[in-house]
Amino acid sequence: MDFFRVYTVDEALAVLRKHIAWDFGVTYVTLREALGRDVGEEITAPEDVPGFDRSTMDGFAVRAQDTFGASEGLPAYLTVTGEVLMGQKPGGSVGVAEAYHIPTGGMLPDGADAVVMVEYTEQLDEHNIGVIRPVAPGENIIRRGDDLKAGSLLFPAGHRLRPQDLGLLAAAGISKVPVRKRVRVGIITTGNEVIPVDQTPGPGQVRDVNSYTSYAQVLENGGVPEEYGIIPDDFHAVADVVQGALEECDMVVISGGSSVGTRDVTARVVDSLGDPGVLFHGLAVRPGKPTIGAVIGGKPVIGLPGHPVSAMVVFNLIVRPLLNPHYRSIPVQARILRSLRSQPGKEDYVRVSLAYKDGELTAEPILGKSGLIATMAGADGLVRIPLDKEGVEAGDIVEVLLF
Amino acid sequence: MDFFRVYTVDEALAVLRKHIAWDFGVTYVTLREALGRDVGEEITAPEDVPGFDRSTMDGFAVRAQDTFGASEGLPAYLTVTGEVLMGQKPGGSVGVAEAYHIPTGGMLPDGADAVVMVEYTEQLDEHNIGVIRPVAPGENIIRRGDDLKAGSLLFPAGHRLRPQDLGLLAAAGISKVPVRKRVRVGIITTGNEVIPVDQTPGPGQVRDVNSYTSYAQVLENGGVPEEYGIIPDDFHAVADVVQGALEECDMVVISGGSSVGTRDVTARVVDSLGDPGVLFHGLAVRPGKPTIGAVIGGKPVIGLPGHPVSAMVVFNLIVRPLLNPHYRSIPVQARILRSLRSQPGKEDYVRVSLAYKDGELTAEPILGKSGLIATMAGADGLVRIPLDKEGVEAGDIVEVLLF
Repeated sequence: MDFFRVYTVDEALAVLRKHIAWDFGVTYVTLREALGRDVGEEITAPEDVPGFDRSTMDGFAVRAQDTFGASEGLPAYLTVTGEVLMGQKPGGSVGVAEAYHIPTGGMLPDGADAVVMVEYTEQLDEHNIGVIRPVAPGENIIRRGDDLKAGSLLFPAGHRLRPQDLGLLAAAGISKVPVRKRVRVGIITTGNEVIPVDQTPGPGQVRDVNSYTSYAQVLENGGVPEEYGIIPDDFHAVADVVQGALEECDMVVISGGSSVGTRDVTARVVDSLGDPGVLFHGLAVRPGKPTIGAVIGGKPVIGLPGHPVSAMVVFNLIVRPLLNPHYRSIPVQARILRSLRSQPGKEDYVRVSLAYKDGELTAEPILGKSGLIATMAGADGLVRIPLDKEGVEAGDIVEVLLF
Repeated sequence: MDFFRVYTVDEALAVLRKHIAWDFGVTYVTLREALGRDVGEEITAPEDVPGFDRSTMDGFAVRAQDTFGASEGLPAYLTVTGEVLMGQKPGGSVGVAEAYHIPTGGMLPDGADAVVMVEYTEQLDEHNIGVIRPVAPGENIIRRGDDLKAGSLLFPAGHRLRPQDLGLLAAAGISKVPVRKRVRVGIITTGNEVIPVDQTPGPGQVRDVNSYTSYAQVLENGGVPEEYGIIPDDFHAVADVVQGALEECDMVVISGGSSVGTRDVTARVVDSLGDPGVLFHGLAVRPGKPTIGAVIGGKPVIGLPGHPVSAMVVFNLIVRPLLNPHYRSIPVQARILRSLRSQPGKEDYVRVSLAYKDGELTAEPILGKSGLIATMAGADGLVRIPLDKEGVEAGDIVEVLLF
């Protein structure tokens, strides 16, 4: 490790991933429990869905060719020879110039290849209808296997399941879903100056903020947070707790105080516990520079910056991609209302609040030191100013990462 | 109610809200439990945060005026008369031409009004330093109350708490958070043709898909889903279950089959159970027209369309705003790759998949009938074509609602 070089986000993620060795195996959960879980192994459709040709409309199952040329002036006359009942196989088949009553979702009788909507028919007498619009073969029906073909890929391993994915699994008849174990994340707070939330800070003391934001961010990204409390800046005390967390968890986030002492102890402890140890110490991101990245025995250990805003930004940039690798943050475009300067060689993340003005989305930068959590709670997202840019001008269209 | 008029989404929400009478009271939860909950009553800051002037850098606490004019050629010489320790009140004060060592987060000693970063000092001997850059009063410090002023508004009632909001509450020392009760949503599936997921559909039968997607969508929007199973299309059977769900829940979603029989029974049952009953029957949305909106005894009852895709779209348009009123769906801009036609007088929601092509976000429409759940699982979002538009042209920039 080059202790004096700061890493870009991409470099940091690459070096962490190179050393992380996770194997979560596969476990089965019920369909409802599968929401937000990562698929454990490729899932394919066990059968055709639907398993039969089905009507998508209320109307009449017909042979399409019998309706060709039909119009209001010259209807096609058909004899209704049967009725399809929901949940039942049709009793017969549709012959030339014949039709079956069919409800939405009903199984298409043999012989029929289309459905005429009831709106485009007129009842002539008890047994006969006139069709006033032609239908093409396949119209208003879903064919067997149109939704899913037996054996087709539903989800690759690693896919995180959303509500619509549960719907697809339900349609395919998969009631037990193979998923990966959730990532268990140990959250450790260090710092002599950090006190529990329900105490009143004395001089030089601050309340523990970062363990709450980290806890919530782990949950939001599908991990299981495990709390290890507030540990004083003592090498052996911190080492014991980090060691214990590494045994019980897949990942450790040290959500420290912001003092030099805290940062030093964290880096020394992490480097002492195993190989490869600390991989980088410093991220080319503002806010977020004092970030420590390490891997010990295949498990990542991330030392977040002490300032709450920096800690949340770094969590989003470094911890989230590890926890939730398929997370896609699609930026929204907005017009920035103030010019922002940036140092080249650092990615800047500027908090902004979004509002619609004259029908256009605008981003108002929230200026304030990264120690001020109030600036984060007021923000809707972050504008990223890339490494090689010196800033943005008021009126520019910028990309906002929502959070 | 005008049974023959379809409602726009805005009209539908307005008429539902006019009749909904929910009172969730206020209950207290721990800070960690508060993630995703709605604030129950206005929360204000109980005290100034920070409670003391604090350094944001490692360096020396000084009187700024003693550094004015300092440069590398002509440093300002100061005597270090003390050290601020983390978590402790400084032992003395900083006088003329004096400085205190101070760590990041340390409490500013009396007399000092700025902090010089250690990088801009040189150690001359055991007790004396040279400052090579001037600091302005207030530089590198956060003043008492800069983050939060005692009595200032943190969150209005109704705000849904995000990770950064938990951080703000932690900083303010609020460890018990007043929240509203979660909305309890009864999910009822109806339809003779609907069978449980673990069974194989016979002719004309379909597996229950909508209760899974609704369950997941309720969870995602902060509600508590309660399942009432699959009920046959029988007036009394459906009425009993809806009645029971209305007693136990705050809202009922009838996630029915798609047959006419199912829709008829649902509408008649809902209208029979109390006032005002059914408010609209038909939504000017595609897919999603066969939607029933009702309120009974102050509780909304929504009959979703039977097709899974339509049901999910209508959930997002009608159920989500009721469950999660502060949800802000900020659309992303993308270039649409195909032209789409739309009927004026209906809002069209077209499923699209998103991809970056040549650095630009593009939206590829996923065409397919709304009965096909596979089209929903493959989609990243919906393009809305407003009521008064006839379509979009390939190459147009469109707004995509992510899901």
